[in-house]
Amino acid sequence: MQEVINAIKKAKSVIILTHTDPDGDAIGSMISVYLVLKGMGKKAAMYCRDTVPEIYKFLPGSGRVKCSLKGRYDLAIAVDCGDEKRVDGGIRLRDLADMIINIDHHPDNSKFGDINLIEKISSVSEILFKLFGKMKVKVSKDIATCLYVGLMTDTGNFRYDYTTADSLDVASSLAKAGAKISRIAMAVYETKTLSSVRILGAALYRLETSQSGHVAWTLLPKQLMDSLGAKSEDLTGLVDQIRSIKGVEVAVLFREEEDSIKVNFRSKFTANVSEIAKKLGGGGHIRASGAILKCSLEDAKEKVLAEVFKVIK
Amino acid sequence: MQEVINAIKKAKSVIILTHTDPDGDAIGSMISVYLVLKGMGKKAAMYCRDTVPEIYKFLPGSGRVKCSLKGRYDLAIAVDCGDEKRVDGGIRLRDLADMIINIDHHPDNSKFGDINLIEKISSVSEILFKLFGKMKVKVSKDIATCLYVGLMTDTGNFRYDYTTADSLDVASSLAKAGAKISRIAMAVYETKTLSSVRILGAALYRLETSQSGHVAWTLLPKQLMDSLGAKSEDLTGLVDQIRSIKGVEVAVLFREEEDSIKVNFRSKFTANVSEIAKKLGGGGHIRASGAILKCSLEDAKEKVLAEVFKVIK
Repeated sequence: MQEVINAIKKAKSVIILTHTDPDGDAIGSMISVYLVLKGMGKKAAMYCRDTVPEIYKFLPGSGRVKCSLKGRYDLAIAVDCGDEKRVDGGIRLRDLADMIINIDHHPDNSKFGDINLIEKISSVSEILFKLFGKMKVKVSKDIATCLYVGLMTDTGNFRYDYTTADSLDVASSLAKAGAKISRIAMAVYETKTLSSVRILGAALYRLETSQSGHVAWTLLPKQLMDSLGAKSEDLTGLVDQIRSIKGVEVAVLFREEEDSIKVNFRSKFTANVSEIAKKLGGGGHIRASGAILKCSLEDAKEKVLAEVFKVIK
Repeated sequence: MQEVINAIKKAKSVIILTHTDPDGDAIGSMISVYLVLKGMGKKAAMYCRDTVPEIYKFLPGSGRVKCSLKGRYDLAIAVDCGDEKRVDGGIRLRDLADMIINIDHHPDNSKFGDINLIEKISSVSEILFKLFGKMKVKVSKDIATCLYVGLMTDTGNFRYDYTTADSLDVASSLAKAGAKISRIAMAVYETKTLSSVRILGAALYRLETSQSGHVAWTLLPKQLMDSLGAKSEDLTGLVDQIRSIKGVEVAVLFREEEDSIKVNFRSKFTANVSEIAKKLGGGGHIRASGAILKCSLEDAKEKVLAEVFKVIK
């Protein structure tokens, strides 16, 4: 940590980078470092290949994140990147700066930095809060807001396994520093579209299960999707909701598209849904997979469930 | 607080009571007091008219909650009850005990106790954590688990307005005392029953909104609830899901019961739903309130929405 502080003190110009397809911890931690460096009077810039997601645009400074790179810096700080490739396949940090600091919390971090600050805790934001403390930085309301977003989102709103008493302590300190807890939670979690909520409703209402309750599925006919004005992105997380039912091991979502049936699988503890998907011409991971079938919705249901029931009923 | 401590010290037998249709704070805070009293060697009993909801049955001591009352006690402690009637329309606490302590966090508490410990903070569990601290009670893992459930559920998993830095401090202390954060969150939030998922589906599918989209509501007729085998506890969090839609400021859930309509309100940023509930004979908090109406579902909708639309359309 002291090495990181020395390197930051020495640098006059710093580029901060985070990973593609950025989440709350990526954006929140990147901006917090930016605000701290600006507060120290340094020249600082932020880079992320992809644009800041809509839900994080309320963060102060989010408008200053750039999607392109130019020039050289004294120092590059990568946050929340398990590997240099996570920044953006093509970029070599060595080409950007003389010194590279890698701040991350992924257990499989490849230690690509000249200095590596890796702690296997909830989030980079939690690491940074401790770092800023050591640096004797006054955590402003804006910095606290950024760090709170990172901590909150990476702990699944204080629900995941690695949410510790320390994480909650940090959250409390950030609230004391001015982070508005409910406003932040609201901004991040409570901006669902009406069509996504309605299609979720229809899907859950129409839910079917096997006799044991171990397999649950729902069918979304094209007509239903159209009548609710639901788009593909409205279905994000839907099959996970089905899996979250007590006793359900395999969840299946059938969605009728223009001329095919899209099938999504999730499993909870034991079933390998990648194998099931492969038999149907699809693929994926053990706990999340998918396939596309060229047949009617009812035929797809019959065919798919026959395969699922071979594994679990 | 000192008065409460003195009264508890003096009593040999204590009955702890909480409100009908109990939530996590009602059950968690009631059991925590029970465990503390038992630890002090007192004769203690717990009463709630309705049975402990399935999701709280993992709490140590939940099996000792009784749905019937007998005998007299030195002391009655009501937790999380804004009014004596909330315990159970028919019961008079004076008939149960010589001394009544009322521990609550509802701003409109009617101060029905001989001693009233009312603090307008997140939850009774947060009040009790402070009380136990003053009593120099060692918070065991079991007590911490009960209080964490109360704090977590009454803050909507640390998302509601009255989630403060102090609430998070208390949560952190409870985690240090042995409360298993992710296990508790899993037990409460990720073991949904099939009927709760189906009724959520029906509620969201049937969602209606005002023209602006600022007000959203859903009606749950008794027949629908019955046909899905849905119970009262299956509706936990449902009105929050309605509020979580982008643009929605006020969410209303109408539920038809045997001979009345139960109405739940949530607001996001600006509307005071406690005021709306009061006009309808109910009460609660600025962002979360409720009322019970004696009329048909359709009449309730008309009456309630008329009040809501006076505030926001």
